[in-house]
Parts: sequence; C-alpha cells; structure tokens
Amino acid sequence: MSEAAKTLDGWYCLHDFRTMDWTTWKMVPAEERQAAINEFLGLLEKWTTVQTDKQGSHAIYNIVGQKADFMMMILRPTMEELQQIETEFNKTKLAEFTIPAHSYVSVVELSNYLPSDSDEDPYENPHVKARLYPILPESKYVCFYPMDKRRQGNDNWYMLPMDDRKSLMRSHGMIGRQYAGKVKQIITGSVGFDDYEWGVTLFADDVLQFKKLVYEMRFDEVSARYGEFGSFFVGNILTDIPAFLEV
Amino acid sequence: MSEAAKTLDGWYCLHDFRTMDWTTWKMVPAEERQAAINEFLGLLEKWTTVQTDKQGSHAIYNIVGQKADFMMMILRPTMEELQQIETEFNKTKLAEFTIPAHSYVSVVELSNYLPSDSDEDPYENPHVKARLYPILPESKYVCFYPMDKRRQGNDNWYMLPMDDRKSLMRSHGMIGRQYAGKVKQIITGSVGFDDYEWGVTLFADDVLQFKKLVYEMRFDEVSARYGEFGSFFVGNILTDIPAFLEV
Amino acid sequence: MSEAAKTLDGWYCLHDFRTMDWTTWKMVPAEERQAAINEFLGLLEKWTTVQTDKQGSHAIYNIVGQKADFMMMILRPTMEELQQIETEFNKTKLAEFTIPAHSYVSVVELSNYLPSDSDEDPYENPHVKARLYPILPESKYVCFYPMDKRRQGNDNWYMLPMDDRKSLMRSHGMIGRQYAGKVKQIITGSVGFDDYEWGVTLFADDVLQFKKLVYEMRFDEVSARYGEFGSFFVGNILTDIPAFLEV
Amino acid sequence: MSEAAKTLDGWYCLHDFRTMDWTTWKMVPAEERQAAINEFLGLLEKWTTVQTDKQGSHAIYNIVGQKADFMMMILRPTMEELQQIETEFNKTKLAEFTIPAHSYVSVVELSNYLPSDSDEDPYENPHVKARLYPILPESKYVCFYPMDKRRQGNDNWYMLPMDDRKSLMRSHGMIGRQYAGKVKQIITGSVGFDDYEWGVTLFADDVLQFKKLVYEMRFDEVSARYGEFGSFFVGNILTDIPAFLEV
Amino acid sequence: MSEAAKTLDGWYCLHDFRTMDWTTWKMVPAEERQAAINEFLGLLEKWTTVQTDKQGSHAIYNIVGQKADFMMMILRPTMEELQQIETEFNKTKLAEFTIPAHSYVSVVELSNYLPSDSDEDPYENPHVKARLYPILPESKYVCFYPMDKRRQGNDNWYMLPMDDRKSLMRSHGMIGRQYAGKVKQIITGSVGFDDYEWGVTLFADDVLQFKKLVYEMRFDEVSARYGEFGSFFVGNILTDIPAFLEV
Repeated sequence: MSEAAKTLDGWYCLHDFRTMDWTTWKMVPAEERQAAINEFLGLLEKWTTVQTDKQGSHAIYNIVGQKADFMMMILRPTMEELQQIETEFNKTKLAEFTIPAHSYVSVVELSNYLPSDSDEDPYENPHVKARLYPILPESKYVCFYPMDKRRQGNDNWYMLPMDDRKSLMRSHGMIGRQYAGKVKQIITGSVGFDDYEWGVTLFADDVLQFKKLVYEMRFDEVSARYGEFGSFFVGNILTDIPAFLEV
Repeated sequence: MSEAAKTLDGWYCLHDFRTMDWTTWKMVPAEERQAAINEFLGLLEKWTTVQTDKQGSHAIYNIVGQKADFMMMILRPTMEELQQIETEFNKTKLAEFTIPAHSYVSVVELSNYLPSDSDEDPYENPHVKARLYPILPESKYVCFYPMDKRRQGNDNWYMLPMDDRKSLMRSHGMIGRQYAGKVKQIITGSVGFDDYEWGVTLFADDVLQFKKLVYEMRFDEVSARYGEFGSFFVGNILTDIPAFLEV
Repeated sequence: MSEAAKTLDGWYCLHDFRTMDWTTWKMVPAEERQAAINEFLGLLEKWTTVQTDKQGSHAIYNIVGQKADFMMMILRPTMEELQQIETEFNKTKLAEFTIPAHSYVSVVELSNYLPSDSDEDPYENPHVKARLYPILPESKYVCFYPMDKRRQGNDNWYMLPMDDRKSLMRSHGMIGRQYAGKVKQIITGSVGFDDYEWGVTLFADDVLQFKKLVYEMRFDEVSARYGEFGSFFVGNILTDIPAFLEV
Repeated sequence: MSEAAKTLDGWYCLHDFRTMDWTTWKMVPAEERQAAINEFLGLLEKWTTVQTDKQGSHAIYNIVGQKADFMMMILRPTMEELQQIETEFNKTKLAEFTIPAHSYVSVVELSNYLPSDSDEDPYENPHVKARLYPILPESKYVCFYPMDKRRQGNDNWYMLPMDDRKSLMRSHGMIGRQYAGKVKQIITGSVGFDDYEWGVTLFADDVLQFKKLVYEMRFDEVSARYGEFGSFFVGNILTDIPAFLEV
Repeated sequence: MSEAAKTLDGWYCLHDFRTMDWTTWKMVPAEERQAAINEFLGLLEKWTTVQTDKQGSHAIYNIVGQKADFMMMILRPTMEELQQIETEFNKTKLAEFTIPAHSYVSVVELSNYLPSDSDEDPYENPHVKARLYPILPESKYVCFYPMDKRRQGNDNWYMLPMDDRKSLMRSHGMIGRQYAGKVKQIITGSVGFDDYEWGVTLFADDVLQFKKLVYEMRFDEVSARYGEFGSFFVGNILTDIPAFLEV
C-alpha cells in the first residue's frame, strides 16, 4: 500500500446548476414573477448575512452555453446546511421555473503534498484557515470542472510512492503559482461525496486565463499522465438578477 | 480457473432513490398533501414493526445535490418482499410526486476472504448473523456507492490466485478496521442482480469520515489497481418527514 | 482469420421491459382499468394457446428496482411474429400506461463449442430441439443480462484459435453444469440483432443461485478475461396480473 | 503518415428512425388519423416517383424492439435533398405522433481497397454506378449498424501500411462474397458527417443471415482487432402502412 | 514537464444547436408565428450590423439528421456578449418552440506549432488578425466536431517533446493546405471552457470535401494515434428562415 495523502478539510460545498424554463416563466403574470424574484432575493440576503458573519460564502454565475443558465456555489460548515439550502431553494416559486442541470457535492480541501512549515496545528494557522473557509471572490468569471487522478495500466497515480507524488505535485503547483493574482483556485475534495475525486473552481477577471492555466497544466505530467477530467462549465458573474429574469 | 470466492448471504437489499417533484406537490391542496404524508408515515410504521420483529430493517436519508432528494434503504429476507415494498410505495399518493432517480438491488454479503475461526456453520454464529441480518444504525450520515473489481489488461482481479486476493483483502480490511466506531460499513453483493458487483453503504456521525476512509483505501492496491467505482451518493438522516415535505 | 464458431438457431426472442406510469393509471376510472386488464389478459390467453401448440413460449416477471416494473419474454418462430406481438401490445389500452424501459432482440442459440456426438442433423435431435424451441419454465425468479466476448489488447476472444476457445468454453460449461437442477439457462444470440453479442436468461426457484452462478463463473477465464457484461435485471414471477395492477 | 484510402462516393443517405406515440395517436379522431396517413402516403408516392426516375431511392422498415418503431432510409444526390425530406416529414401531421429515435447521415461509398480492373473513370463504370446509386431492394429484413475502425494501442487500423490494410480487407471481403445472393450490403461513409466512420445496411430475405454474416466476420482480423460497433437495428419490411397505423 | 504550446486567441465562440418543436409550433396562430419569425429576423439584423462593423460574426445552418434542426454559430469579442446573445435568444418567442440540442463554448485559436516569420507582435499582423477575428463565409455547407488530443498509454500527446509535436503538426497542416480553396477551417480552443479541447468548424461549397479532408487526416499520425473525436454535425446553409419555419 502506498502512503495515503492527508488532507485538511474546511467548509462543505454545493455547486448547484440550473436551467431556466423560460417558456413557462413567461406565462406567469408579471406580479407573480416579481414575487418569485423578491423571494429569491430574500434568500440571497440571508446568504449574504451568513457570509458577512463568516459562517459560509456563496457565488452566483451565469453559465455560457446550454449546460445550464446559472450556477449557485454554496459553502457552509455542515452537510446539513447544504441540504437545507438546496431544499429551501427547491421549495421557492422561482425553482418551479428552473430545471436541475448538474450539481456537485464536495468539501474545501488542502493536501499534504504541500510543504508544511512546522508542526503547529494547521487548523490554527490563519493562512490555512483563510483557505479552508474562503469568502468567494466577486471575479467576473468562473470555471468549474471535476477531476480524478488516473488509475490505468502504467498510469496509476495511487500506486506511486508518496515522494514521487509530492515531487510531481510540487512542479504542478509551480504552474499554478505563475497565475497568482490572475486566477484564484479553490480545490474541493469529493471522494465519498460525488462521482469524481475533486472539484476545481477557478475565478478570474480575464476569462482567457482559465484556458491558459488549464492548457499549460495539461502538459505537466500530473495532468498529462494522471488527470481525468469531467465536464467544464464557464460563466459570467450574475449581479443583476432582476435584469436576468426580466422577460 | 481461479478459485472462486465463497460468500455468506443475508437479507436482500433495495436502495431506492427518489427526486421530489416540488412543483406539482405544491399544487395539491394542503389536506391532500397531509393525507399523502399520513399514508407514507403509515407505511413507515409497518416497516418499523418489521424491524422491531427483526424481520428486516430500513433507513431513510436526504441526499445532497441533484442526484436525488431522498433514499430509502430496505432490507428483507426475500426478493419478493423488496418487490412488494417497491410496488406498494409506487402506488401511494406521495409516489405520484416523486421521480425515480436511481435504485440498486443486492444482498448483504460476507466473503471468505475474511479468516474463519472454525468449521462451525457460520450461519449459526451470532456475530455472523448480526452482520448478515443487520438492523441499520440511525447515524447522521449515509454514503452509498456501487463498485466492481477490475478485469483489465494486467489489472485483472479475477485472474489472481486466491492467496493473493486473500492477502490483498486482508490489508484492505485493516484500513477499514481503523475506522471502527467511526464508520459502519454494510457490503451487499449484486452480481447477477444489478450492474455492479457490490454496493457499499457507509454510516457515520461525522460525514468527513466517509471521505477519509474512501480516500485512504484508494491508495491501497485493492482499490488503486482493482477498484472501479460508480456514482457516489451522500446524505443526511431524514427523521422529520412532515417538515421535509412541508411547502 | 480464426475459425468461426458455428451456431444452431431456434426461436426468435424479444425481451420487452416496461415501467408502469402509476400516476396516470390511477387517474383512469376503475371500469376502464378493468377493461384494460381484461384486454391484456386476452392477449396472454392467445400467447398461452400458442405455447400449448408449441409454436412459441412466453414468460412475465416483475423486475425489482427502478429499471422496469415488468418484463415480457417472448419466443416465436419468426421475427415478424415478435414485431406483431410488440405492436399489438403497444396498441392496447394498458400500454398507454407503460413506459418502454428496455428491450432485447435475439434468437435462441446453441454453439459448436459443445461436443457433438455424431454427424446426424442436429435440428432433428430431440434434445437439441428441446433446447432450440424451449417452453419457458415457471420458475420463481428470472435474471437477464446481455454480454459480449472481449476484443481488447491481449484479451481478444475472436483472435484465439478455435481449440483454445473450445477448451475454455468446456471448463466454463462445467461450472454451469454444477447448477443443473438449480438454474435453467437460455442463451440467445444477438449478433446483428442488438447491441451485445448474447443475451443470457436464467431461471431459478432460489434467487441466490443467480448470484452464485454468475460470481463463480466470473473467476473462470472465459468471463474473467473475455466477458463484457451489460445491465442485469432480476425479477419475481408475475402470476397475478390483476393484483399487480390493482390501485 | 500512412497512405490514405481513396473512396468513390455516390448518393447521400439518411437513416431516420422514429418511435410512434401510440397514446396520442389513438386520441386523434379517425378521420384526422386517416388524413395524416394519406398525407404520408402522398409523400411516399413522391419518393417513389423519384426512385422510378432513378434520382434516389428509399426503404421503410419496422424495427423490432424498443429502439424505434420504423426506419426510413433515404438516398438522394445531394445533402440538401436529405434535409428537405427530413424537414418535410417533420412538418407532416403524422410526424406529430412520432418521436425521433435515432438518425444517421452518410454517403454511399466504395473504397480503393477493392481491386480496380483498369484506369478507366470508375464513375463511368456501369457496375460501379449501380453500386454508388443503388435502388434499394425490397427484401423482407433490414439490419443497420454504424462502425469505426479501431485506433487503440497496438490495434490501430490507421497506422497500418496500405498493403496490410488491402490484404486484410481482401480476406474480409471474401466472407461477404460467400453471402452473395443471401445478403445485400450497402456501405455508407460518414467520416465528417456523423459519429461513426461508416454505416452498414444489410438486406436479406432470411433474417438469420445477418447474424451468420456479422458473427463470421467477427472472427476475421478486420473486425476482431479493428472493428468498433455501435447500436444494431433489425427490422421487417413495412409494406402496409395503413395496417401498421390502424388502432 | 513538456513545453506547453502557446496560443493566440481571438473572438469567443458559441455554437448553439436547436431542435424545432414542430408540433407546438404548428398549434400557434399564423400571425403569432409571423411575429415570432419577425422578432428572430430582427435579432439577426442586429447581428448583421455587428458583423458589418467587424465586431463579431455569425452563421446559421440547418443540421441534417435528428441531432438538431439548426445551428447558430456566434463570434464575439467577449464571453459576456455570448451569454447575452444566448439569453436574448432564449427569451424570444421562437425559442419557446426550440429544444436545446447541443452547444459548444470556445475561442478562436492559432497555435505556435505554426511557424512564425518574425518576432513582431502577432496580434498586429493583418493575416493573423484576419484569422483570429474571422468573418464567417457563406459557404453552402458546414461541419462541426469537437476533439481532444489523446493521453492514453503510449499514445500521450501531452508527453511528447515540443519538437515532435511541431513536426507532427506540420505534416498534419500540409493535408489541410491541400484543401485550400475547397474547405475553410476555423479552429476554436475550449480547454477550460467546454468538454473537449478544441472545436473544429469547416465550411465548404462541396459537402464531400468534409469527408475527404477528415478521412485523409485520419491516416495521419496526429489523428490516427492522438485524435479523439466527439459528435459530428453537418448542415446546409439556412438562408430563407421564413421558408424553413413555414408550416
């Protein structure tokens, strides 16, 4: 058995993708639509209070293309809260006009492939805490995709010795660091929670940086030999919800 | 031909995942909704009586994310009873507002990779019986996933000699044992019954233990080289059904 | 080119899986439901007459889990009859309340991997005829799955010399023979007719024997290295159709 | 780079598979159904005129099993005509009661793996013309499936030298020739047009010949090592459309 | 780590495929249909103005077969504009009668595998600019497919040294050049934006050239060993929208 990687785990995370059913939404009388929008804005206000209290965070983005119309990314300290938020949204009026398009359940994760400075309790380190319990940036663009480490024939990540994995991850991380200030990356672990092993959520104010970062990484052995990728979602920040929902 | 593993088989098992159709559920008059809830609670009472009589067991969990809204896990001595329970539920009023999301048919299984103390009849051993006919715990969280042993190129589990499989399973089991008291694991065999070879249902009061257990095992050769995994479902125990269904 | 296997081919076979739309079925007035049931029972009577005349056979089973609610397996001398039966069923009242869930088109098949006693015309041999034109047993349980022989890298069944295939199939058949009296197996060939190369339909009065048989075979090289399996369906015999359809 | 195969290309081809929505079809008043049938028969008359003028050809078959209820195979000199026929059918009354089940876009193809007698212009050769612009036979049965040549590891058809491919195709063609008079085969190329590289449409008056031909070929190296197959559709000729649509 | 390829990136690109719901479209009164057509034509006028101003481009094609009825390909300087166009279309009356069939999000891309003449800023080179910000041709036919470079076993594009990739791409490009004047090719990169790494859109006045080009390339090592292809869509230019929508 290879030495298992250890992780630090922070807030639980739900990515909830929805498609608008514009046809039925347009059928509803304007005042009813307005009430539905107000109800949803009320929900968002509650989420904003939670975020202000640093008890969680959230972000809402329009998704480009037919995979979904918008995505709600929600961070909370417990799995129950994710469930409650999901169910509460599902019971709103607006939800009657949305079609579930995709979702992903995970938890913010840092791995021990990263160098550790000391033997302090990492959960007490303010830098670590800021990464485990992140307030999501209000970047113009988001990119989300799930991924696995490959286990096939000679390309089996989980059979590699820890030192090899560490050294591969170090060089991989170096690419990421070149994008510091351009792309903010939040890794969430989903082993045991959803169909891939990780979710990757990227934030940037220049959408092209997503392509540059992911493409550059693909030439790195960690991705080239060991990366398996799911669907990619890209979106623009959704700030004016009433305008988006106006018909 | 490799020597085949032998199994002990207990209660038959149905995992039944459902999505709520909240839109139509909300359209129903309150008293009709209440009647539907009462009818479902009546069904649960019957199941509870069966469980009290140790003639089966069941558990109901909310599932996080869009894969399903809730999951009913049912254990019974015969395949007919699973069928009857499924059909009885399908004929209820509540079922009119649920959409089948996923199901899994299997039977509680113990394998002979585990050491056997004697040549007594294992079906008479109280420890074995407790595992073959388990009363499901009321843990806060559940995790379910199906899996296969891989048969690809040089990674072909079924071509390994029995002794190799035994020794691999022993070290794999040792990881599991480290989670004793934290995670309760029920293995159900589904060869001939459903699309994967096994279902794995985990119960815990700390949801993070699912991730830790499954991730640690993934570095073990049994999973790393020979494990093929299906979809993962994670959920919170659903105790207050009327509250969940209140709209 | 490897020497091709020869086959003996009997009755054509349609496996037709259906899911009940209970919600709309319940909306129908009781007398209309009764008329629909009677119409379907009339169809079954016709099928029974055909079976009594040894011009075909059929079986109806409830399927456990969400893959389907019931399965009709139909054997007939021609492909046209399968089509007619399918279309006739589709035009019944009951069919309006069923949703097609899965189907499989094949023909009862015996292969020349089996030893042949003489050079008589096998189609005149009563034992062969009984197997090519079988009256389906009224066993308590059914199991159906489609399968391919693998053609991948070094595991390519179709590149093996005939003698190797024969010897592999002989040892494979020996496992099957251990289940004689417990499991009745009907192999149907579907090359050129449906998406896999064979359908396997198993009948037993002890549902656990399906699991034991398929699992034991999986350790045999024919399955371990060369078997590719599709979805598995398991079911209980459906004898009381009015009770099943009562709501 | 391997030497590319050259092709001769004839009529464009649309395979259009449809499922009947019997439930709504039955709801329509009889005279409206009759009008829809008449409209469709009118369309078929136009197609027959085109075929009589040797400006195209078509065939209609019932498909056995749930994949589709009927298939229209259409040959025309241009891609525009296929589009027009498809759109014209989609706008008919009958189409309101059909559900698109599958389609395939391709062009009748002959390849230069076949020996060429001379350096005449093959498009002027009457034998070649008859094969590039075929009038479809009115055989009792049809079989359709798409296929690719494999490009995986050591089994990469497109990396083989032309001479190897030629010699492999020659022996493959010899199997086909044994079925001359029993099975008529139309190969259509779909590289750049649809998801597989070829469509294969077989016609026969004995449906078992499809199985014998495809199974025998599977032992030939071209299929055994290099063939990747999609879904198989099998059907009976549909001559009496009013009878098929009568409810 | 292999040296990563560098790209030049131009306009963002949305391929938006739609299926007509002819049944409900026909139910709408003629004047309402006309209003919906006029509204859509108004949208197209706006797009044409943008194209005249060289601030973007677009093309509309009928798709042959059931994958979609028409495809809108849209090029714009920003991801926001793609989103706005998509949402604006989704809110039109016509969109109520279309079903999303497929979409693809990418950005026009040139790669550094191509020789560079000097060290001028390529974004200032008029030839490069014409390719990064292309006005789409009004060719009679379109072909679209997404693709990946393979990363499997010994066929791992991303592990090849830059020089090998360059030399492979050079010979690959030479095939393309033979089709100059016959096929116009627009490559769009989608790493980080959608599920494949590239989209390929081909334009031609002879639809057979798509097949010839893609098939010839398939024998080239870049495609033969390293190409993974998604679904192929082929279509005829849609110039007369009112005629297409007339029922």
